[in-house]
Amino acid sequence: MRTLNVALGDRAYPIHIGRGLLDNASLILPHLKKPRVAIVTNEVVGPLYLARLRTALSNAGVSSTAVSLPDGEAHKDWQTLNLIFDALLGDRCERSTTLVALGGGVVGDMAGFAASAYQRGMPFIQVPTTLLSQVDSSVGGKTAINHPLGKNMIGAFYQPQLVLADTATLDTLPDQELKAGLAEVIKYGLIRDYAFFVWLEANIEKLLARDHDALVFAIERSCANKAEVVARDETEQGERALLNLGHTFGHAIEAGLGYGEWLHGEAVAAGAMMAAELSCRLGWISAAEVERIERIHRRAGLPVKGPALPVEQYLALMAGDKKVEDGRLRLILLRGIGRAVIHADAARADIGAAIAARCA
Amino acid sequence: MRTLNVALGDRAYPIHIGRGLLDNASLILPHLKKPRVAIVTNEVVGPLYLARLRTALSNAGVSSTAVSLPDGEAHKDWQTLNLIFDALLGDRCERSTTLVALGGGVVGDMAGFAASAYQRGMPFIQVPTTLLSQVDSSVGGKTAINHPLGKNMIGAFYQPQLVLADTATLDTLPDQELKAGLAEVIKYGLIRDYAFFVWLEANIEKLLARDHDALVFAIERSCANKAEVVARDETEQGERALLNLGHTFGHAIEAGLGYGEWLHGEAVAAGAMMAAELSCRLGWISAAEVERIERIHRRAGLPVKGPALPVEQYLALMAGDKKVEDGRLRLILLRGIGRAVIHADAARADIGAAIAARCA
Repeated sequence: MRTLNVALGDRAYPIHIGRGLLDNASLILPHLKKPRVAIVTNEVVGPLYLARLRTALSNAGVSSTAVSLPDGEAHKDWQTLNLIFDALLGDRCERSTTLVALGGGVVGDMAGFAASAYQRGMPFIQVPTTLLSQVDSSVGGKTAINHPLGKNMIGAFYQPQLVLADTATLDTLPDQELKAGLAEVIKYGLIRDYAFFVWLEANIEKLLARDHDALVFAIERSCANKAEVVARDETEQGERALLNLGHTFGHAIEAGLGYGEWLHGEAVAAGAMMAAELSCRLGWISAAEVERIERIHRRAGLPVKGPALPVEQYLALMAGDKKVEDGRLRLILLRGIGRAVIHADAARADIGAAIAARCA
Repeated sequence: MRTLNVALGDRAYPIHIGRGLLDNASLILPHLKKPRVAIVTNEVVGPLYLARLRTALSNAGVSSTAVSLPDGEAHKDWQTLNLIFDALLGDRCERSTTLVALGGGVVGDMAGFAASAYQRGMPFIQVPTTLLSQVDSSVGGKTAINHPLGKNMIGAFYQPQLVLADTATLDTLPDQELKAGLAEVIKYGLIRDYAFFVWLEANIEKLLARDHDALVFAIERSCANKAEVVARDETEQGERALLNLGHTFGHAIEAGLGYGEWLHGEAVAAGAMMAAELSCRLGWISAAEVERIERIHRRAGLPVKGPALPVEQYLALMAGDKKVEDGRLRLILLRGIGRAVIHADAARADIGAAIAARCA
């Protein structure tokens, strides 16, 4: 087992990464206020792992209830969130009950937001079961639901007590989701870790083959990068925005097609290519670098172009992004592989041209 | 104008109290990140004060949009909250836009929760227009909506940038709402300020007659009490719970009758009498003190008994309160006038007897 720490003062918490952690309730126990948890999972993950987690907890003297949500980004809305509140109130869960998110990014985002709001805040623990949530969404305290007019528009910064990434849960992850998770892994290389990018170029096939040591290394390196950034800028006043490379373009793809049509990681991959394309057009990276970025995405089985939506629709959807300030879009662009910057001055025409060049 | 400070470190903020502050945009200006606000009001307060506030802001170069909610506690739900999100997203409000709550406790609670969650947090300002919100709900950062199974069950601790209590807005407050506000004023005397209680005994008729100086004094003294408690215990780990005197009983009344049947302050008054009754039964205060507490409530035109719901229903509704821990109800009781304590060991039979003695 590997352990990292997210250094956030009195909100600091550990990330444990390793095989079979789900059955080890002693990792969870020290983080509970009371021996009582409510587990939020979904209809896909629940049948695979819920009973094991509950048994482990029960053997350790922890009582648990569970609520299962419908699967997928299309359900990341208030109606589904309310299923969590209904269950918590129906079971008389208290402020001192701990909420446990068992599932991927959607489950974690919704359970985290529910925990932040239930009785104005209850403790919660992330048990991410997808690569994407293990390397990204379970760490850092961003929680949210979608609104028809924009992704992740309603939420909270709310840190978990603990992240427990059991790599054995990746054994059952569909290939398409494994690949989608790699989009966020590659992102860390692109924005701030050139050495990791080079490692990925050498090892991407191992990750696709689910080589355990390679996966643990990639997850740990990703989480270490994220934890460093989050510790310095918890609420995204500055540097944390770099983690959004590809996300403003990607959110437009997800909203434009309807949530759930593309996986989040797939949209981020296409979005990262648009950001690389624009960076190249601005003269910040070379065509050879764009080609290198495209190659790693292709090898990971990820899209390198967005869907064929009108460029105007992309631009309109992006204009509603959270990263708009004074009407100006703050994009994350590249000054090199491993060196992302925030850029608020890209001309609309240049952004549109980059999108046009990178959509099908 | 009187100014208090809520001492919360980097979340500290001023409370300005005085006549005509609504027209003085220079009080708001220093607290805006950008010269843009979204005003949340309701169908009753909006026609009275919205145009004045918007004109004042506009003259100061601040652009504003507004959204009007239906009036009343019955609408303190997700559906109404979503009207705020729809408006904010429809108007492309940014994270740096400031949300202004113009109205009573319901508007403030909902606007505050919306501000906490919109794009994971936007700044907000409270402009309370009822006595209850000026002395209580606008200060301290508790925001929430109701759930069918419990009041204020979904929300956030989220502090405003500024509270602007324009006492002139009380001119248009219906008598019943003025009286309801007095319940929270009396509460401060009961829980921690005996001298203020004595002042209230001497001046309650002045408050009912809307004597301006008396109102300003009562509002300032109430806010000073609340600000002190909140500064010491922002998220209610301990002492802050004392502010809930009468509220656990009161929430049962509000939920039992259906939200909006009784005003919140009316339910709190009846709840405070139940707490006094129980304190007396425990031998902590004398019958003469209960009588004295009853008298001030009666003079304020407030109910001194709860509605005729079955005692079992009261107890069932109270068992779902946020202040339940390990299945034990943590009640706020009195060891004297001006001295409240948290008590988790009251026997169910004693609680039931106190309710029975104090419901119609």
